[in-house]
Amino acid sequence: MFRKSVKVTTRGEGDIVDITPIVRSVVQESGHADGIAHIFISGSTAAVTTIEYEPGALNDLRRALSAMAPADQPYMHDSRWGDGNGRSHVRASLIGPSLSVPIADGDLATGTWQQIVLLELDIRSSRERTLVISIL
Amino acid sequence: MFRKSVKVTTRGEGDIVDITPIVRSVVQESGHADGIAHIFISGSTAAVTTIEYEPGALNDLRRALSAMAPADQPYMHDSRWGDGNGRSHVRASLIGPSLSVPIADGDLATGTWQQIVLLELDIRSSRERTLVISIL
Amino acid sequence: MFRKSVKVTTRGEGDIVDITPIVRSVVQESGHADGIAHIFISGSTAAVTTIEYEPGALNDLRRALSAMAPADQPYMHDSRWGDGNGRSHVRASLIGPSLSVPIADGDLATGTWQQIVLLELDIRSSRERTLVISIL
Repeated sequence: MFRKSVKVTTRGEGDIVDITPIVRSVVQESGHADGIAHIFISGSTAAVTTIEYEPGALNDLRRALSAMAPADQPYMHDSRWGDGNGRSHVRASLIGPSLSVPIADGDLATGTWQQIVLLELDIRSSRERTLVISIL
Repeated sequence: MFRKSVKVTTRGEGDIVDITPIVRSVVQESGHADGIAHIFISGSTAAVTTIEYEPGALNDLRRALSAMAPADQPYMHDSRWGDGNGRSHVRASLIGPSLSVPIADGDLATGTWQQIVLLELDIRSSRERTLVISIL
Repeated sequence: MFRKSVKVTTRGEGDIVDITPIVRSVVQESGHADGIAHIFISGSTAAVTTIEYEPGALNDLRRALSAMAPADQPYMHDSRWGDGNGRSHVRASLIGPSLSVPIADGDLATGTWQQIVLLELDIRSSRERTLVISIL
Protein backbone atom coordinates (compact mmCIF):
# COMPACT_ATOMS: atom_id res chain seq x y z
CA MET A 1 0.00 0.00 0.00
CA PHE A 2 1.13 3.51 -0.86
CA ARG A 3 -0.06 6.45 1.24
CA LYS A 4 0.24 10.20 0.86
CA SER A 5 -1.25 13.15 2.74
CA VAL A 6 -1.79 16.23 0.62
CA LYS A 7 -2.62 19.75 1.80
CA VAL A 8 -5.32 21.60 -0.14
CA THR A 9 -6.21 25.23 0.51
CA THR A 10 -9.91 25.98 0.12
CA ARG A 11 -11.48 29.41 -0.33
CA GLY A 12 -14.53 29.41 1.89
CA GLU A 13 -18.00 27.92 2.07
CA GLY A 14 -19.17 26.35 -1.16
CA ASP A 15 -15.71 26.08 -2.68
CA ILE A 16 -15.48 22.90 -4.77
CA VAL A 17 -11.96 21.81 -5.67
CA ASP A 18 -11.23 19.40 -8.54
CA ILE A 19 -8.79 17.03 -6.85
CA THR A 20 -8.59 14.59 -9.79
CA PRO A 21 -5.09 15.83 -10.80
CA ILE A 22 -3.88 15.37 -7.20
CA VAL A 23 -5.25 11.82 -6.99
CA ARG A 24 -3.85 10.97 -10.43
CA SER A 25 -0.40 12.23 -9.49
CA VAL A 26 -0.41 10.10 -6.30
CA VAL A 27 -1.43 7.08 -8.41
CA GLN A 28 1.53 7.72 -10.74
CA GLU A 29 3.93 8.25 -7.83
CA SER A 30 2.78 4.93 -6.33
CA GLY A 31 3.78 3.07 -9.48
CA HIS A 32 0.62 0.92 -9.28
CA ALA A 33 -1.00 0.25 -12.65
CA ASP A 34 -3.98 -1.57 -11.10
CA GLY A 35 -5.67 -1.20 -7.76
CA ILE A 36 -7.97 1.13 -5.85
CA ALA A 37 -7.39 4.78 -4.99
CA HIS A 38 -8.97 5.67 -1.66
CA ILE A 39 -9.57 9.34 -0.88
CA PHE A 40 -10.39 10.54 2.62
CA ILE A 41 -10.92 14.02 3.98
CA SER A 42 -9.98 14.47 7.59
CA GLY A 43 -12.42 16.83 9.38
CA SER A 44 -16.17 17.06 9.91
CA THR A 45 -17.10 20.04 7.70
CA ALA A 46 -15.87 18.93 4.29
CA ALA A 47 -16.77 16.04 1.99
CA VAL A 48 -15.63 14.10 -1.07
CA THR A 49 -17.71 12.99 -4.08
CA THR A 50 -17.67 13.07 -7.90
CA ILE A 51 -19.35 15.47 -10.32
CA GLU A 52 -18.86 16.93 -13.78
CA TYR A 53 -16.52 19.82 -12.98
CA GLU A 54 -18.39 22.55 -14.82
CA PRO A 55 -19.54 25.80 -13.13
CA GLY A 56 -23.24 25.18 -13.84
CA ALA A 57 -23.34 21.69 -12.30
CA LEU A 58 -21.25 22.86 -9.33
CA ASN A 59 -23.72 25.64 -8.68
CA ASP A 60 -26.66 23.26 -8.96
CA LEU A 61 -24.99 20.99 -6.38
CA ARG A 62 -24.45 23.94 -4.01
CA ARG A 63 -28.13 24.83 -4.26
CA ALA A 64 -29.19 21.24 -3.46
CA LEU A 65 -26.90 21.15 -0.41
CA SER A 66 -28.37 24.47 0.74
CA ALA A 67 -31.87 23.07 0.44
CA MET A 68 -30.92 19.95 2.44
CA ALA A 69 -29.47 22.01 5.31
CA PRO A 70 -30.58 25.63 4.80
CA ALA A 71 -28.53 28.58 6.02
CA ASP A 72 -31.61 30.48 7.24
CA GLN A 73 -32.61 27.89 9.84
CA PRO A 74 -31.44 27.75 13.48
CA TYR A 75 -29.02 24.90 14.29
CA MET A 76 -28.73 23.35 17.72
CA HIS A 77 -24.98 22.95 17.15
CA ASP A 78 -24.74 26.73 16.75
CA SER A 79 -26.85 27.56 19.79
CA ARG A 80 -24.73 25.22 21.92
CA TRP A 81 -21.29 26.22 20.64
CA GLY A 82 -21.79 29.54 18.86
CA ASP A 83 -19.94 28.14 15.86
CA GLY A 84 -22.28 29.22 13.08
CA ASN A 85 -21.34 26.14 11.05
CA GLY A 86 -24.14 23.76 12.06
CA ARG A 87 -25.23 23.50 8.44
CA SER A 88 -21.64 22.61 7.42
CA HIS A 89 -21.61 19.61 9.77
CA VAL A 90 -24.95 18.35 8.48
CA ARG A 91 -24.05 18.71 4.80
CA ALA A 92 -20.66 17.01 5.30
CA SER A 93 -22.29 14.13 7.12
CA LEU A 94 -24.90 13.61 4.39
CA ILE A 95 -22.26 13.42 1.61
CA GLY A 96 -19.54 11.61 3.54
CA PRO A 97 -15.75 11.90 3.83
CA SER A 98 -14.53 8.98 1.71
CA LEU A 99 -14.51 7.71 -1.85
CA SER A 100 -12.81 4.81 -3.63
CA VAL A 101 -11.99 4.78 -7.35
CA PRO A 102 -10.54 1.86 -9.33
CA ILE A 103 -7.17 2.24 -11.04
CA ALA A 104 -6.93 0.39 -14.37
CA ASP A 105 -3.98 0.48 -16.78
CA GLY A 106 -2.30 3.14 -14.65
CA ASP A 107 -5.20 5.59 -14.66
CA LEU A 108 -8.39 6.30 -12.71
CA ALA A 109 -11.50 4.51 -13.99
CA THR A 110 -13.64 7.64 -13.71
CA GLY A 111 -15.78 8.72 -16.67
CA THR A 112 -14.67 11.54 -18.99
CA TRP A 113 -17.07 14.00 -17.35
CA GLN A 114 -16.65 12.67 -13.83
CA GLN A 115 -14.17 14.52 -11.63
CA ILE A 116 -13.24 13.81 -8.02
CA VAL A 117 -14.04 16.82 -5.87
CA LEU A 118 -13.42 18.14 -2.39
CA LEU A 119 -16.40 20.12 -1.04
CA GLU A 120 -15.49 22.85 1.40
CA LEU A 121 -18.59 23.28 3.55
CA ASP A 122 -17.25 25.29 6.49
CA ILE A 123 -17.81 29.02 6.83
CA ARG A 124 -14.26 30.31 7.27
CA SER A 125 -12.97 32.36 4.36
CA SER A 126 -9.98 30.07 3.84
CA ARG A 127 -8.82 26.78 5.22
CA GLU A 128 -6.03 24.26 4.80
CA ARG A 129 -7.45 20.76 4.40
CA THR A 130 -5.66 17.43 4.64
CA LEU A 131 -6.56 14.79 2.06
CA VAL A 132 -5.32 11.28 2.79
CA ILE A 133 -4.85 9.31 -0.43
CA SER A 134 -4.15 5.58 -0.20
CA ILE A 135 -3.35 3.31 -3.14
CA LEU A 136 -4.26 -0.34 -2.59
CA MET B 1 -6.82 -8.33 -6.66
CA PHE B 2 -9.43 -9.50 -9.17
CA ARG B 3 -11.09 -6.95 -11.46
CA LYS B 4 -13.98 -7.13 -13.88
CA SER B 5 -15.87 -4.53 -15.91
CA VAL B 6 -19.48 -5.41 -16.57
CA LYS B 7 -21.88 -3.72 -18.99
CA VAL B 8 -25.39 -3.02 -17.69
CA THR B 9 -28.17 -1.67 -19.89
CA THR B 10 -30.51 0.74 -18.09
CA ARG B 11 -33.97 1.79 -19.20
CA GLY B 12 -34.13 5.51 -18.59
CA GLU B 13 -34.38 7.98 -15.72
CA GLY B 14 -35.33 6.39 -12.42
CA ASP B 15 -34.42 2.86 -13.45
CA ILE B 16 -33.00 0.99 -10.46
CA VAL B 17 -31.14 -2.23 -11.29
CA ASP B 18 -30.49 -4.94 -8.70
CA ILE B 19 -26.82 -5.65 -9.38
CA THR B 20 -26.38 -8.05 -6.43
CA PRO B 21 -26.35 -11.13 -8.73
CA ILE B 22 -23.67 -9.49 -10.91
CA VAL B 23 -21.47 -8.64 -7.91
CA ARG B 24 -21.98 -12.12 -6.43
CA SER B 25 -21.00 -13.80 -9.70
CA VAL B 26 -17.78 -11.71 -9.89
CA VAL B 27 -17.01 -12.71 -6.29
CA GLN B 28 -17.42 -16.39 -7.23
CA GLU B 29 -15.34 -16.00 -10.38
CA SER B 30 -12.57 -14.38 -8.30
CA GLY B 31 -12.34 -17.45 -6.09
CA HIS B 32 -11.94 -15.26 -2.99
CA ALA B 33 -13.84 -16.53 0.05
CA ASP B 34 -12.94 -13.49 2.15
CA GLY B 35 -12.24 -9.90 1.22
CA ILE B 36 -13.99 -6.75 0.04
CA ALA B 37 -16.08 -6.27 -3.10
CA HIS B 38 -15.71 -2.74 -4.44
CA ILE B 39 -18.34 -1.48 -6.89
CA PHE B 40 -17.82 1.65 -8.96
CA ILE B 41 -19.98 3.24 -11.61
CA SER B 42 -18.11 5.16 -14.24
CA GLY B 43 -19.99 8.33 -15.28
CA SER B 44 -21.48 11.36 -13.57
CA THR B 45 -25.22 10.70 -13.89
CA ALA B 46 -25.59 7.33 -12.16
CA ALA B 47 -24.96 6.13 -8.62
CA VAL B 48 -24.58 3.01 -6.47
CA THR B 49 -26.15 2.28 -3.07
CA THR B 50 -28.11 -0.43 -1.22
CA ILE B 51 -31.86 -0.75 -0.62
CA GLU B 52 -34.50 -3.43 -0.13
CA TYR B 53 -35.29 -4.30 -3.75
CA GLU B 54 -39.05 -4.07 -3.55
CA PRO B 55 -41.13 -1.81 -5.88
CA GLY B 56 -42.57 0.26 -3.02
CA ALA B 57 -39.22 1.15 -1.44
CA LEU B 58 -37.71 1.85 -4.88
CA ASN B 59 -40.52 4.27 -5.62
CA ASP B 60 -40.10 5.96 -2.25
CA LEU B 61 -36.39 6.43 -3.00
CA ARG B 62 -37.17 7.95 -6.41
CA ARG B 63 -39.54 10.44 -4.77
CA ALA B 64 -36.88 11.47 -2.23
CA LEU B 65 -34.30 11.99 -4.99
CA SER B 66 -36.84 14.08 -6.90
CA ALA B 67 -37.41 16.25 -3.84
CA MET B 68 -33.65 16.76 -3.34
CA ALA B 69 -33.14 17.92 -6.95
CA PRO B 70 -36.59 18.60 -8.43
CA ALA B 71 -37.33 18.24 -12.14
CA ASP B 72 -39.43 21.42 -12.24
CA GLN B 73 -36.60 23.75 -11.28
CA PRO B 74 -34.16 25.47 -13.66
CA TYR B 75 -30.59 24.10 -13.57
CA MET B 76 -27.56 26.20 -14.45
CA HIS B 77 -25.97 23.12 -16.04
CA ASP B 78 -28.91 22.96 -18.44
CA SER B 79 -28.92 26.65 -19.32
CA ARG B 80 -25.17 26.48 -20.06
CA TRP B 81 -25.11 23.24 -22.02
CA GLY B 82 -28.73 22.59 -23.04
CA ASP B 83 -28.39 19.06 -21.66
CA GLY B 84 -31.60 18.83 -19.63
CA ASN B 85 -29.91 16.51 -17.14
CA GLY B 86 -28.79 19.02 -14.49
CA ARG B 87 -30.89 17.22 -11.89
CA SER B 88 -29.22 13.91 -12.85
CA HIS B 89 -25.76 15.30 -12.07
CA VAL B 90 -26.87 16.66 -8.70
CA ARG B 91 -28.63 13.45 -7.62
CA ALA B 92 -25.66 11.28 -8.68
CA SER B 93 -23.25 13.48 -6.78
CA LEU B 94 -25.35 13.37 -3.59
CA ILE B 95 -25.51 9.54 -3.58
CA GLY B 96 -22.03 8.84 -4.92
CA PRO B 97 -20.50 6.38 -7.41
CA SER B 98 -18.85 3.81 -5.14
CA LEU B 99 -19.68 1.19 -2.53
CA SER B 100 -17.69 -1.50 -0.72
CA VAL B 101 -19.20 -4.68 0.69
CA PRO B 102 -17.39 -7.33 2.77
CA ILE B 103 -17.12 -10.89 1.46
CA ALA B 104 -17.30 -13.54 4.18
CA ASP B 105 -17.35 -17.31 3.64
CA GLY B 106 -17.55 -16.79 -0.11
CA ASP B 107 -20.64 -14.58 -0.05
CA LEU B 108 -21.54 -10.89 0.33
CA ALA B 109 -22.14 -9.73 3.90
CA THR B 110 -25.27 -7.77 2.94
CA GLY B 111 -28.48 -8.26 4.92
CA THR B 112 -31.30 -10.46 3.61
CA TRP B 113 -33.35 -7.42 2.55
CA GLN B 114 -30.39 -5.35 1.41
CA GLN B 115 -29.62 -5.41 -2.29
CA ILE B 116 -26.86 -3.57 -4.17
CA VAL B 117 -28.39 -1.27 -6.76
CA LEU B 118 -27.36 0.85 -9.69
CA LEU B 119 -29.41 4.05 -9.97
CA GLU B 120 -29.85 5.33 -13.50
CA LEU B 121 -30.39 9.07 -13.09
CA ASP B 122 -29.85 10.34 -16.64
CA ILE B 123 -32.72 11.27 -18.91
CA ARG B 124 -31.98 9.19 -22.01
CA SER B 125 -34.45 6.38 -22.63
CA SER B 126 -31.73 3.72 -22.57
CA ARG B 127 -28.06 3.61 -21.76
CA GLU B 128 -25.21 1.15 -21.49
CA ARG B 129 -23.37 1.60 -18.20
CA THR B 130 -19.98 0.24 -17.15
CA LEU B 131 -19.68 -1.13 -13.63
CA VAL B 132 -16.15 -1.75 -12.40
CA ILE B 133 -16.11 -4.51 -9.78
CA SER B 134 -12.88 -5.14 -7.85
CA ILE B 135 -12.31 -7.95 -5.36
CA LEU B 136 -9.68 -7.21 -2.72
CA MET C 1 -6.82 -8.84 5.99
CA PHE C 2 -8.33 -8.89 9.45
CA ARG C 3 -12.10 -9.14 9.88
CA LYS C 4 -14.40 -8.81 12.85
CA SER C 5 -18.18 -8.70 13.24
CA VAL C 6 -19.37 -6.67 16.19
CA LYS C 7 -22.88 -6.55 17.67
CA VAL C 8 -24.22 -3.10 18.58
CA THR C 9 -27.53 -2.58 20.36
CA THR C 10 -29.41 0.51 19.22
CA ARG C 11 -32.23 2.25 21.05
CA GLY C 12 -34.79 3.09 18.40
CA GLU C 13 -35.30 5.49 15.51
CA GLY C 14 -32.83 8.36 15.42
CA ASP C 15 -30.31 6.72 17.75
CA ILE C 16 -26.80 7.67 16.67
CA VAL C 17 -24.02 5.52 18.13
CA ASP C 18 -20.39 6.68 18.24
CA ILE C 19 -18.64 3.54 16.96
CA THR C 20 -15.15 5.13 16.81
CA PRO C 21 -13.99 3.25 19.95
CA ILE C 22 -15.20 -0.05 18.44
CA VAL C 23 -13.39 0.57 15.15
CA ARG C 24 -10.25 1.70 16.98
CA SER C 25 -10.22 -1.43 19.12
CA VAL C 26 -10.53 -3.66 16.03
CA VAL C 27 -7.63 -1.74 14.45
CA GLN C 28 -5.51 -2.40 17.55
CA GLU C 29 -6.52 -6.06 17.68
CA SER C 30 -5.52 -6.43 14.01
CA GLY C 31 -1.98 -5.27 14.78
CA HIS C 32 -1.92 -3.20 11.57
CA ALA C 33 -0.22 0.19 11.96
CA ASP C 34 -1.07 1.26 8.41
CA GLY C 35 -3.94 0.39 6.14
CA ILE C 36 -7.63 1.05 5.68
CA ALA C 37 -10.46 0.33 8.11
CA HIS C 38 -13.64 -0.59 6.27
CA ILE C 39 -16.94 -0.35 8.17
CA PHE C 40 -20.12 -1.94 6.85
CA ILE C 41 -23.58 -2.17 8.37
CA SER C 42 -25.55 -5.19 7.35
CA GLY C 43 -29.25 -4.34 6.88
CA SER C 44 -31.30 -1.85 4.89
CA THR C 45 -32.55 0.52 7.61
CA ALA C 46 -29.30 1.74 9.16
CA ALA C 47 -26.33 3.69 7.82
CA VAL C 48 -22.74 4.69 8.56
CA THR C 49 -21.13 8.14 8.23
CA THR C 50 -18.98 10.61 10.20
CA ILE C 51 -20.03 13.65 12.25
CA GLU C 52 -18.87 15.66 15.26
CA TYR C 53 -20.39 13.60 18.07
CA GLU C 54 -22.06 16.42 19.96
CA PRO C 55 -25.81 16.43 20.82
CA GLY C 56 -26.53 19.62 18.87
CA ALA C 57 -24.99 18.43 15.59
CA LEU C 58 -26.61 15.00 15.99
CA ASN C 59 -29.99 16.65 16.38
CA ASP C 60 -29.39 18.86 13.35
CA LEU C 61 -28.54 15.74 11.31
CA ARG C 62 -31.74 14.01 12.49
CA ARG C 63 -33.78 17.02 11.37
CA ALA C 64 -32.15 17.02 7.91
CA LEU C 65 -32.86 13.29 7.48
CA SER C 66 -36.47 13.89 8.51
CA ALA C 67 -36.80 16.63 5.89
CA MET C 68 -35.33 14.36 3.18
CA ALA C 69 -37.80 11.55 3.93
CA PRO C 70 -40.53 13.00 6.18
CA ALA C 71 -42.44 10.87 8.68
CA ASP C 72 -45.79 12.53 7.85
CA GLN C 73 -45.84 11.38 4.24
CA PRO C 74 -47.31 8.11 2.91
CA TYR C 75 -44.74 5.54 1.72
CA MET C 76 -45.48 2.97 -0.92
CA HIS C 77 -43.30 0.48 0.97
CA ASP C 78 -45.64 0.85 3.94
CA SER C 79 -48.85 0.54 1.96
CA ARG C 80 -47.53 -2.63 0.30
CA TRP C 81 -46.06 -4.32 3.37
CA GLY C 82 -47.61 -2.54 6.35
CA ASP C 83 -44.12 -2.08 7.80
CA GLY C 84 -44.28 1.59 8.76
CA ASN C 85 -40.54 1.97 8.08
CA GLY C 86 -40.62 3.24 4.50
CA ARG C 87 -38.83 6.41 5.58
CA SER C 88 -36.12 4.31 7.27
CA HIS C 89 -35.32 2.53 4.01
CA VAL C 90 -35.10 5.78 2.06
CA ARG C 91 -32.88 7.54 4.63
CA ALA C 92 -30.55 4.53 4.89
CA SER C 93 -30.23 4.34 1.13
CA LEU C 94 -29.40 8.06 0.80
CA ILE C 95 -26.59 7.88 3.39
CA GLY C 96 -25.26 4.43 2.54
CA PRO C 97 -24.02 1.41 4.52
CA SER C 98 -20.24 1.64 4.12
CA LEU C 99 -17.31 3.87 5.01
CA SER C 100 -13.53 3.51 4.72
CA VAL C 101 -11.07 5.34 6.95
CA PRO C 102 -7.25 5.31 6.62
CA ILE C 103 -5.13 3.93 9.44
CA ALA C 104 -1.84 5.78 9.92
CA ASP C 105 0.71 5.13 12.68
CA GLY C 106 -1.67 2.69 14.34
CA ASP C 107 -4.61 5.06 14.62
CA LEU C 108 -7.57 6.24 12.54
CA ALA C 109 -6.89 9.29 10.34
CA THR C 110 -10.17 10.95 11.31
CA GLY C 111 -10.15 14.58 12.48
CA THR C 112 -10.35 15.49 16.18
CA TRP C 113 -14.04 16.42 15.88
CA GLN C 114 -14.92 13.69 13.40
CA GLN C 115 -16.43 10.53 14.86
CA ILE C 116 -17.58 7.41 13.01
CA VAL C 117 -21.27 6.85 13.67
CA LEU C 118 -23.92 4.20 13.17
CA LEU C 119 -27.33 5.71 12.39
CA GLU C 120 -30.27 3.64 13.55
CA LEU C 121 -33.10 4.61 11.22
CA ASP C 122 -35.62 1.82 11.84
CA ILE C 123 -38.70 2.31 14.00
CA ARG C 124 -38.37 -0.54 16.48
CA SER C 125 -37.60 0.54 20.03
CA SER C 126 -34.44 -1.55 20.21
CA ARG C 127 -32.40 -3.58 17.78
CA GLU C 128 -29.20 -5.59 17.62
CA ARG C 129 -27.11 -4.53 14.64
CA THR C 130 -24.13 -6.28 13.08
CA LEU C 131 -21.19 -4.14 12.06
CA VAL C 132 -18.60 -5.81 9.85
CA ILE C 133 -15.18 -4.20 10.30
CA SER C 134 -12.38 -5.17 7.92
CA ILE C 135 -8.77 -4.04 8.19
CA LEU C 136 -6.89 -3.99 4.88
